[in-house]
Amino acid sequence: MLNTRARVSKATVRRIPLYYRAVQQLQQQGVKRIRSERLSEIIHIPSATIRRDFSSFGELGKSGYGYSVDTLVDEFGKLLEVQDAENILLVGCGGLGAALIENNFRRNPDLNITMAFDIDSAKIGTEIGGVPVYDFRELAMRVTPDIKTAIIAVPSSAQPQVIPALEGIGIDAILTFAPQPVVCLPTTTIRYIDLTSELQSLLFTAHHQQLAE
Amino acid sequence: MLNTRARVSKATVRRIPLYYRAVQQLQQQGVKRIRSERLSEIIHIPSATIRRDFSSFGELGKSGYGYSVDTLVDEFGKLLEVQDAENILLVGCGGLGAALIENNFRRNPDLNITMAFDIDSAKIGTEIGGVPVYDFRELAMRVTPDIKTAIIAVPSSAQPQVIPALEGIGIDAILTFAPQPVVCLPTTTIRYIDLTSELQSLLFTAHHQQLAE
Repeated sequence: MLNTRARVSKATVRRIPLYYRAVQQLQQQGVKRIRSERLSEIIHIPSATIRRDFSSFGELGKSGYGYSVDTLVDEFGKLLEVQDAENILLVGCGGLGAALIENNFRRNPDLNITMAFDIDSAKIGTEIGGVPVYDFRELAMRVTPDIKTAIIAVPSSAQPQVIPALEGIGIDAILTFAPQPVVCLPTTTIRYIDLTSELQSLLFTAHHQQLAE
Repeated sequence: MLNTRARVSKATVRRIPLYYRAVQQLQQQGVKRIRSERLSEIIHIPSATIRRDFSSFGELGKSGYGYSVDTLVDEFGKLLEVQDAENILLVGCGGLGAALIENNFRRNPDLNITMAFDIDSAKIGTEIGGVPVYDFRELAMRVTPDIKTAIIAVPSSAQPQVIPALEGIGIDAILTFAPQPVVCLPTTTIRYIDLTSELQSLLFTAHHQQLAE
């Protein structure tokens, strides 16, 4: 397995999720080997940067023959693996939020939604899949110090209130399904999953199959 | 209007919906011009990538003075426009599938889930948010010829049976929440949304903020 802790730059580390996503997509398309030049065209990172990054991880294969896509997926997947159990809170227990709690990332036993919040009195005090639902107005009182990560599944209109409240209790990693971009603290890492955009983008790609690779 | 047909990469195409959402938001906030560096802070895509993407569309303005937000909204909107109402089927009416049907992309009135399928006899014959749930074994009989797009929200283990069945009735665009890669026809456009990977990638980025540059 690769060892990044010691000597890989922050800039390189930031690119790992991009690499991982790209090679996963290639694997899904049945691609077996990829050269840095081709990968560069896909992810718009210079091929020299890609080769330097990959060589800093040790033996990922020879660039001249192309890298093995399966090896890249395996190794980047291991790098991204959560090292310790990660306790997560979720805000917004509507249909999507409840489905996320029920599923609770069961593919990865180290990822655990341990508490949920809503403002609907019909939901507060109940449990979803064994996870307690608390009043969002009691966020500071209910949250435990081990939780630094949150998932947001509230309507977009509520998100500008939710994010500062989360930052206020020390949350610094947020995955949100509300597509409305929000200004957050520089120390907050935020990732938006916009399902409508994903679908529009899929349809756009499907309708533009003739696009140059 | 922009011409992407000839030379825009698939990676760039995938980012168009993200750009579109961000610039729409800026427009609503009354922002007139945006520089790539500022846009980068909002959408978490490197500013160099943004400039390269925008330049690949031709004349979107000069980066040095900032891009015109109105122009960006107009042009990306035209690119992404769903030209006609798009009728969509959904397979797998568990928690996530049901939440997607209930939500039904209400932000975009041209995107409509019009029928759903499951193999659970307790669900077959019911409706979710007004959308009928049919027996997946009656897929070919139930599907209408206007439907070319499907959303899959089944367990990963079921996906290898679902995709060929969808391809068999003429579906050529698939959005799936089952992360297991599946070999599909070259004419099928498939997009995987892997929520566990998204979360792992978020945590990795957040945990490595402290690494040396």
